[in-house]
Amino acid sequence: MIEKKIVGEKAVEFVKDGMTVGLGTGSTVYYTIIKLGQLMKEGLTIKGVPTSVETEKLAIECGIPLANIKEIDQIDVAIDGADEVDSQLNLMKGGGGALLREKIIARAAKKFIVVADPAKIVNHLGAFPLPIEVVPFGVEMTNEQIRLLGAETKIRYSNGNPYQSDNGNYIIDAKFPNILNPVTLEQKLNMIPGVVENGLFNQMANAVITLNAEKSVVIKNRS
Amino acid sequence: MIEKKIVGEKAVEFVKDGMTVGLGTGSTVYYTIIKLGQLMKEGLTIKGVPTSVETEKLAIECGIPLANIKEIDQIDVAIDGADEVDSQLNLMKGGGGALLREKIIARAAKKFIVVADPAKIVNHLGAFPLPIEVVPFGVEMTNEQIRLLGAETKIRYSNGNPYQSDNGNYIIDAKFPNILNPVTLEQKLNMIPGVVENGLFNQMANAVITLNAEKSVVIKNRS
Repeated sequence: MIEKKIVGEKAVEFVKDGMTVGLGTGSTVYYTIIKLGQLMKEGLTIKGVPTSVETEKLAIECGIPLANIKEIDQIDVAIDGADEVDSQLNLMKGGGGALLREKIIARAAKKFIVVADPAKIVNHLGAFPLPIEVVPFGVEMTNEQIRLLGAETKIRYSNGNPYQSDNGNYIIDAKFPNILNPVTLEQKLNMIPGVVENGLFNQMANAVITLNAEKSVVIKNRS
Repeated sequence: MIEKKIVGEKAVEFVKDGMTVGLGTGSTVYYTIIKLGQLMKEGLTIKGVPTSVETEKLAIECGIPLANIKEIDQIDVAIDGADEVDSQLNLMKGGGGALLREKIIARAAKKFIVVADPAKIVNHLGAFPLPIEVVPFGVEMTNEQIRLLGAETKIRYSNGNPYQSDNGNYIIDAKFPNILNPVTLEQKLNMIPGVVENGLFNQMANAVITLNAEKSVVIKNRS
């Protein structure tokens, strides 16, 4: 899709020689990674920190060497997609279930850049259920606490068993009627023991790259 | 120790027939569990929800049947100890590493009762390092975020490898110079991606059972 390609490739302008780069997962950041691979053939030197096994494979195919995740404590720039982006540049992410690793890497990054085709830009987050990663122990107690915040919840299943994240946790998909205040909701969710993380990425994106109505690239900076 | 025994046994007064009871871990709640076992022989009927393997064994020895943790979504009363208790009845817990399960069970309880000998009562929390449970992925990035809040941190080791919690996570012991505002600190810690839980149990205890200067039992209720 040409829109994803334009937006994804634009993000490489935030990458400078010598940087450690967080590499997100998805159909838009795919084009960022491909482009970074091309630039490396032209002399760019970077190290990649993949947010998923899928991205790790792609990075290796593109000739991007990987940093040792056990040792690094900071990332220069992280680039990732989002399922939804609101006008304050708050994000909803994680339909795919990689949200915890994505969020750790985004938070460790000095700059977090989001690539989003125009279909992802919304007035309010919450058209999709919010994915919430929870520990398996006592999952029904954690589920009940999430319901008490006003959500309809479902423990995500795969082949008849609870879906397990890369970290061995479960995912609860929580449909809130409207997420008018994502900052408060994220805080309330994170205060529930048993909740490891949730798919709200509030006040984290430094810039969102998208297209305007005339199909030109625009970079929205967080104020 | 007689003080722990007096305080621990007093807590059974919060347990009524038919209740599902969260059973904490440690040298004071030990006496609660023993006493509950005695009361069951006299006709009390309860189900126990143990916070650790140690407590599970003790409960079985005492003849307390266990609830199925996978199915229950609420607990009538939970009883547990604490490493430190401040004047607002905020707690620091988890030196032993069972903090996540203890916190899930405390939060799911309609009433959370803490048993604490007088040595645990402090003006401010924080004489000990605060235990923080974190996911193994990207542990140095999470560690760095905790340091940025002002702590000296150490990843807990056991036999040359990172200590693993019952849930497969790591523990970071974080020494803050002073925990003057535990409520704010807990929120900041829980907002760090990679932090699963921390040992601050703020605004959770409904009552703390302890001894006063005359060695009489007192029950402090949270206002």
